[in-house]
Amino acid sequence: MSRRNMIIAQSGGPSPAINASLAGAVARGMGSDQIGTVYGALHGLQGLLERRIISLSQQMKTAKDFELLVHTPAMALGSCRYKLPHDETIYRTVLNIFREYNIGYFFYCGGNDSMDTVARLSAYFKEKGEDIKCIGIPKTVDNDLAETDHTPGFGSAARFVAASFSEIMIDSSAYPSPSVTIVEVMGRNAGWLTASSVLARAHGFTGPHLIYLPEVPFNPKAFLAKVGEKMEAETNVLIAVSEGLRLENGNYVAEAESGAIDMFGHRALGGVASALEALVRGAYGDQKWKIRSVEPSVLQRVAMHLASGTDLREAQDVGMRAVGVALAGETDLMVTIKRVSNHPYLVRYETAPLSAVANHERTVPLEWICDEGTNVSGEMVEYLRPLFRGETQVAYEDGLPHFFRLDRTRLVGPGEG
Amino acid sequence: MSRRNMIIAQSGGPSPAINASLAGAVARGMGSDQIGTVYGALHGLQGLLERRIISLSQQMKTAKDFELLVHTPAMALGSCRYKLPHDETIYRTVLNIFREYNIGYFFYCGGNDSMDTVARLSAYFKEKGEDIKCIGIPKTVDNDLAETDHTPGFGSAARFVAASFSEIMIDSSAYPSPSVTIVEVMGRNAGWLTASSVLARAHGFTGPHLIYLPEVPFNPKAFLAKVGEKMEAETNVLIAVSEGLRLENGNYVAEAESGAIDMFGHRALGGVASALEALVRGAYGDQKWKIRSVEPSVLQRVAMHLASGTDLREAQDVGMRAVGVALAGETDLMVTIKRVSNHPYLVRYETAPLSAVANHERTVPLEWICDEGTNVSGEMVEYLRPLFRGETQVAYEDGLPHFFRLDRTRLVGPGEG
Repeated sequence: MSRRNMIIAQSGGPSPAINASLAGAVARGMGSDQIGTVYGALHGLQGLLERRIISLSQQMKTAKDFELLVHTPAMALGSCRYKLPHDETIYRTVLNIFREYNIGYFFYCGGNDSMDTVARLSAYFKEKGEDIKCIGIPKTVDNDLAETDHTPGFGSAARFVAASFSEIMIDSSAYPSPSVTIVEVMGRNAGWLTASSVLARAHGFTGPHLIYLPEVPFNPKAFLAKVGEKMEAETNVLIAVSEGLRLENGNYVAEAESGAIDMFGHRALGGVASALEALVRGAYGDQKWKIRSVEPSVLQRVAMHLASGTDLREAQDVGMRAVGVALAGETDLMVTIKRVSNHPYLVRYETAPLSAVANHERTVPLEWICDEGTNVSGEMVEYLRPLFRGETQVAYEDGLPHFFRLDRTRLVGPGEG
Repeated sequence: MSRRNMIIAQSGGPSPAINASLAGAVARGMGSDQIGTVYGALHGLQGLLERRIISLSQQMKTAKDFELLVHTPAMALGSCRYKLPHDETIYRTVLNIFREYNIGYFFYCGGNDSMDTVARLSAYFKEKGEDIKCIGIPKTVDNDLAETDHTPGFGSAARFVAASFSEIMIDSSAYPSPSVTIVEVMGRNAGWLTASSVLARAHGFTGPHLIYLPEVPFNPKAFLAKVGEKMEAETNVLIAVSEGLRLENGNYVAEAESGAIDMFGHRALGGVASALEALVRGAYGDQKWKIRSVEPSVLQRVAMHLASGTDLREAQDVGMRAVGVALAGETDLMVTIKRVSNHPYLVRYETAPLSAVANHERTVPLEWICDEGTNVSGEMVEYLRPLFRGETQVAYEDGLPHFFRLDRTRLVGPGEG
């Protein structure tokens, strides 16, 4: 059998683990006799369509390169928010490019939109009689992909959230005067990342005292009553809120400040914490308590300095496994993580059909949300705890993290690299 | 000479280094034959006046305790924002408590307000014929204390700011689409912390592209022109702004520009970054570019996981030196750091009269601000670089930082401990 080439691309929002999956997949591809050149498409499908293709076989030279890539956040290949249109000329362009570059293996790393993209391309390739193995590599800090116990990227973002909450708690409890601190956490429809703030309680801290996930409709009156109740019992109250909180009527709490609608029809969110800060201020005045909102924003998804060692290792494994699955002749699958046990923490890598993942969203089970929608259960804590473990080897240079960069200007044509 | 006791307290805003100074001072005090018990007053002068005093000689047992305390952010003794009133009964109360507890050495760790407090108490003690050595220990993430090259706490906060900017830069440059990201940095009147974002440029990143310090009046028209100019040259523009930016007329930008009324009918108390986000959106629309603001808020002053090793070591040294100075019979001084050389980086610990520090503010020299108030000079980079170096040994437990806590309920009376 003649060797064919592989191409990999990244899509969706950044995370600290997505390059670890890239490193795993590229290492496995470069190590295989079945695979010729390992290509990377810049900026996902969008760059692929513009033939912005680099040779990873050329650019990834040493073990040190791989080590640095694993510890570099966001995406080394660049990302896109590109929704594959239902337009055959686009599909045909992709197929032509793949034929020119003799691509036999295609890997796309992203969330559920990306899995839909891979599934549709794969169906088209088959229809045209082309044998191109198409495998999805999961990633999202939101942890909202179906069919997998958790998603690479989530553990690291969750660790940043939990550590930040414990630091914010220690900050606010420095003072003897009463305070309310509201912290906004990422996650549009799934509350996993917001829930992970609960881990800050594990080391002797009493906060966060209230945790609001997007899975439960938000009631401003009940919220104000809860804040009043907690302030009777505590000097410094810490509150975790998801950016995606909605009222009973379905409107986003942050709707007043929301901006444009993105390409997938998602509304860009922001400002829940400051909206709730204003609500508390309006109800209780700002003389009695110090009222404050914090929005760590994108830091949650790129804070490599607090990445979880477990997460980075699994992300690498998932990338390697994706290539292994394709080399074994399988296609139309996404690699999944199955938790085998919690004590000790053990996982197994499996696969799920792309169709079972595409355009589905896995939210927090309602039975893991308790105390009238203001807290999460012990099951959630058990679920989260192992995902945080393990430290990372970020390389520092003069005290600042040293990241790996691919040369995005060294484009290669078919037959090159 | 009979042994006398020492008391120490913490004041002002949190930092990652203030407990390192506490650890240094307590270790030096406990190791001295001249000193009996080492006491700590909870919540600064405010707690002292309520006789909320604990015995650090009792509570600090092992080398491990000291190690953990050094790596715990905010203040283990608790803080206050208490301005000593011009009321002799207050001074007399402090003196009486010090007499009861046989205090011969008083250390107060804080900013310029705290140095004023120490100076006034010291003057009163002398007037009453009491020999109590009073020494100030500097701390502030703002780096705005006079008479010292830099202040313990600043290097760590600055390292967090620089690392966060490089992570935010890598996040925004993941996409091929144009974006403007505005990040708000702490420092009401002094731009040191905002300036430290410049270090993110050191490792191959082109951002931050614009840096606005509070030392220069902010001109919205010029700002918008600069943003347009940078967007011609760059795809993803990153902007650092100080929380304390003011217009020519002296009004804060945050107040001038925050206009959004939220869904509950309250005026949103946005920060500078969100005000400028709205300004850019208004001027350029939000179709062409993704426009975003980030406000890391209190994370800047408690992010122990990115503390600078140099900063923590110096903070400990400054605490030890404060006790050494008092034991040598000196009083009415604050310990200062003098930079001896940059290559290699060497410092010497000296002292300055409290009166020279109290109520003064050290802002960024105007000659270190360049490009029409949108950038900082090479001198600033040279000044900042050594303060970032060195990593820290945060103790992690299950992936989360493990912090030290003093038992604030074990109060001791005179003669106890």
